[in-house]
Amino acid sequence: MERRHLLELAALSAEEITRLLDNADSYVDIRRRAVKKVPALRGRTVVNFFMEASTRTRASFELAAKRLSADTLSVTGGSSSVVKGETLLDTARNLAAYFPDIIVLRHRHAGAPHLLARHIDASIVNAGDGAHEHPTQGLLDLLTIRQHKRRIEGLKVAIIGDIAHSRVARSAIAGLATLGANTYVCGPPTMIPIGIETMGCTQTFHRAEAVEDADVVMMLRIQKERLDEELFPSDREYHLAYGLTQKVLAAAKPDCVVMHPGPINRGVELDPDVADGVQSIILDQVANGLAVRMAVLRDCAMGKEG
Amino acid sequence: MERRHLLELAALSAEEITRLLDNADSYVDIRRRAVKKVPALRGRTVVNFFMEASTRTRASFELAAKRLSADTLSVTGGSSSVVKGETLLDTARNLAAYFPDIIVLRHRHAGAPHLLARHIDASIVNAGDGAHEHPTQGLLDLLTIRQHKRRIEGLKVAIIGDIAHSRVARSAIAGLATLGANTYVCGPPTMIPIGIETMGCTQTFHRAEAVEDADVVMMLRIQKERLDEELFPSDREYHLAYGLTQKVLAAAKPDCVVMHPGPINRGVELDPDVADGVQSIILDQVANGLAVRMAVLRDCAMGKEG
Amino acid sequence: MERRHLLELAALSAEEITRLLDNADSYVDIRRRAVKKVPALRGRTVVNFFMEASTRTRASFELAAKRLSADTLSVTGGSSSVVKGETLLDTARNLAAYFPDIIVLRHRHAGAPHLLARHIDASIVNAGDGAHEHPTQGLLDLLTIRQHKRRIEGLKVAIIGDIAHSRVARSAIAGLATLGANTYVCGPPTMIPIGIETMGCTQTFHRAEAVEDADVVMMLRIQKERLDEELFPSDREYHLAYGLTQKVLAAAKPDCVVMHPGPINRGVELDPDVADGVQSIILDQVANGLAVRMAVLRDCAMGKEG
Repeated sequence: MERRHLLELAALSAEEITRLLDNADSYVDIRRRAVKKVPALRGRTVVNFFMEASTRTRASFELAAKRLSADTLSVTGGSSSVVKGETLLDTARNLAAYFPDIIVLRHRHAGAPHLLARHIDASIVNAGDGAHEHPTQGLLDLLTIRQHKRRIEGLKVAIIGDIAHSRVARSAIAGLATLGANTYVCGPPTMIPIGIETMGCTQTFHRAEAVEDADVVMMLRIQKERLDEELFPSDREYHLAYGLTQKVLAAAKPDCVVMHPGPINRGVELDPDVADGVQSIILDQVANGLAVRMAVLRDCAMGKEG
Repeated sequence: MERRHLLELAALSAEEITRLLDNADSYVDIRRRAVKKVPALRGRTVVNFFMEASTRTRASFELAAKRLSADTLSVTGGSSSVVKGETLLDTARNLAAYFPDIIVLRHRHAGAPHLLARHIDASIVNAGDGAHEHPTQGLLDLLTIRQHKRRIEGLKVAIIGDIAHSRVARSAIAGLATLGANTYVCGPPTMIPIGIETMGCTQTFHRAEAVEDADVVMMLRIQKERLDEELFPSDREYHLAYGLTQKVLAAAKPDCVVMHPGPINRGVELDPDVADGVQSIILDQVANGLAVRMAVLRDCAMGKEG
Repeated sequence: MERRHLLELAALSAEEITRLLDNADSYVDIRRRAVKKVPALRGRTVVNFFMEASTRTRASFELAAKRLSADTLSVTGGSSSVVKGETLLDTARNLAAYFPDIIVLRHRHAGAPHLLARHIDASIVNAGDGAHEHPTQGLLDLLTIRQHKRRIEGLKVAIIGDIAHSRVARSAIAGLATLGANTYVCGPPTMIPIGIETMGCTQTFHRAEAVEDADVVMMLRIQKERLDEELFPSDREYHLAYGLTQKVLAAAKPDCVVMHPGPINRGVELDPDVADGVQSIILDQVANGLAVRMAVLRDCAMGKEG
C-alpha cells in the first residue's frame, strides 16, 4: 500500500482539496445523531503525537478518530522520553514500531512532518508545524466558507493579523489561491513577510483596503507576547489599527462572514459584539474542524488505493 | 429534546434523588461481571472538562462513561487554550461545537456549571464547583448510607470538619435534608459558616455532641494549607479536638458507619485503625461513586424524555 | 478466581516464561492486519497507574490493552491525590474499588508491585519498580533474541552499562539465566553491584571480554545525571571505555545482534551507525514489547484458571 499523507495545502490540487471537502461535508451531520460514530476505521490505530501544547486541535483529532471507531494513543511533549533528549526521528520510529495507521504530528519546527513522512512507515498528518502550515485548519476554513458562500472562486477574502508567524494564514492562503479566491493579507509591516504575494495573494498594510467589499474577513489570533515587546507597541494600538469592530466591518459586503481560528483575544483582534454577532461563523469553523479531520484520517487510512 | 443537567442536590426533590439512587443500585454489580459494560451510551460523547486537578473524580467519571460504552474526551486545566486566557464560556462553546451529549465540569468557581447550563447546548454535570456543591459525591454518600442502613429518614448523621470550605459537605447536607435525615455539622467555629442551619442541619462545635448515638459519622478531609496558618493552630491540635478515634467513635451507635470522601490524612482527621476498621465503609463509597456516575450520565444523556 | 500477577522474572520458571513468549509470538503479526485488535478482553478494565513518568512503556501497555479490546484508565503521578500525600496503598485501594481486572504499576520504589499484590484484589503487572525489575522489558528482550537466534540456551549475551541502577538489566539477567544463556555483565566498577554473579551471570569490567564471540550485545541507556558527577568522569570517556562502535562489535560473532531498551543516547553508549546498522534489532524490541504486553495482560486477566 502506498501511504497517503497530509503535509501541506500548498501541495494539493484543486481536485484533491475539493474531494476532501466533499468527504468532510458528508461527516458534518453525524454529530447530530444519537450514535455519533461510524465503523470506518475500526481496529485502526491513530497516534496523536503533540510536541507542542494544544487543547483544541488535539481534542478535535482525538474525537475525530474515536468517531471513526479507531483506537487512539496520545503522546505529548511533556512526556519523559522527550525530556530524555531522544531525537524526533527516534521517538517517531518507536511509535511506528506499533504499526499505527496514522501519526498526527504537531511540532514547533517547520518541516517536521515532512521528515517523518520520508522516514516513517505510517501516514503522517500535519497538525501544525512551526510557522509553516496547519493544513486541517486551512481545510476547515475552506469548508466553512464554502458552506456559507456556496463557492470559493472569485470571493474576496481578507486575512488580517500577524501573517508572518501564522501557520493558519499560510494554509488558508495556499488553499484559497488554489481554489481561485481573491485574497488580501493585511497587518503591520513587521508582521507581513516579504514576498508573500508569491503565494497568490495581495498584501496591504491598511485594514480598510482589505475589508472593503470583502465576502470573508478572517481575523488571526494575535500572540500577546509579540505585542509590547517587539512587533507592535500595545494591545490598544493594535486594536485601533487592525482590530475588527462593527464599524470597520460595515465596509465589507452586507453578507460578509467573520472567521477566527480561536482562541479569541476579545477586545484585541476582535470585538466581542463581532465575535458573537450574526456575521460570525467561528463556531461553525470548530464544528467543521471535526468533520474535516474525520475526512482526512479516513483518507489517509485508506491509502492511495482508497 | 430538553436537556437534563445535574447541577446541585439542593435543587432535587426526594423523588428525583431516589430515582437516581435506584438507578445507581442497578449498576453496582456490573463491576463483578467479566464484561463490565453495557451499551446504553454507545456512540454518545462525554467530555470531562476539569479546570481543577483531580485524580479520583475524573477517573471515576471517565470509567463510568466507558462502562456505558460512550466515547470520552478529557480536557484539563493545564492545557494550552486555558493558559492562552480564553474565557470559560468560549472554551465551553468550542467543546459544545462537537455536539457532546454531556460536559462534566469541575471548576474552582461556584456557579460555573450553572453558567454553562444556561449558555451551552449539552447536558452539564457538576463535578465540583468551588466550595458550592459536588452532587455526585452527595449521591454516592446517600447511596452508601442507604445500602448499609436500608433507609435515610430519621438517621442521625454527623459531618465533622471544615464545613465552610467543603462542597462535599454542602451536597451531603442538602441531600440528607431532602431525604429526612437528622444531620449535625461539627467543626471549629472558624470552619462553620454562619447560617448553615438554614440548609436543614444542626450545628455544634463539640465533637462529642455530634457523634453521640450517631448512625453515620462522615469525616471531611482537612486541607493542610488551612491548618497552621489561618483557621486552626496545628494538625496535632485538630486531631485532638476534631479527629475520629476508636474512643470517640465508641459514643456513637454500635453499628455506626464511618465515611470519608478521600484522600485521607491518616492521623489527622481520621485514625488509621478507624479508617481500616470494620465500621469504615469508605471503599464502598468509592465503588458506589462509579455506579452513581453511570446512573447520572445515563440519565442526562437520555434527556427529559428518557 | 485466583489472581495471576507479573511481578518479576526472577520468580518465573522456564516453562512459565516460554508459555508467555509463545503467546506473545501469536500476537506479533496482529499489527500487520487492517483490524489490529482481538476481542479477548472486551469489557475488562486495565488501569495504568504510573507514579513515574514514562512515554514508551505507558503507551505500549495502553495500546496493548486497547488491541485486546479492554477499557483503559490512566492514572499518573502528577495527578492531584498523589500531591495530596495519600499513601500508595490508599490510592491503590481506591483504584481497586472499581474492580479493575489489572493494575499496571510503575513506581520508583522496588517492591511496590509486590505490596499491591498482597493487599489489592486485582492482578498486578510490574511496569518497572525502582532499580529492581521491569519484567515485560525482560520478556520482550527474550522474545526478540529468540526470534533472531531460534533459541536462548547456550547463547553468549553481553549486557553493558550501568548494571547497578538498571531494572532492565536485572530482568534480562534473571530471564536469560532461567533459559540457560551465558550472560556477561560489563561496566565500570562503580556501576556493577557486588554479588551480581549470584543471579547467574559473569561479571567483567572489560568491554572486549564481554563482546568477544557474543551472540547478543545488549547496551543499557546511560543516565546522563550519573555521568560527570559521581559514577564516571564524562560522556566522552564513557564512550571510549564502554560505548559500542562498529570496531568494538567486530570482535563479536558475525551474526551478533545489538539491542537497546531506548531511548538511545546516540554517541554515548551507542554509535549511530551501530544503532541504525544491519545488526541492530532495537525496533524489533519495541514492536515485540507490544506483543509481550498483550500476552501478559491476557494471561493476568484470565487468572490461574485461564
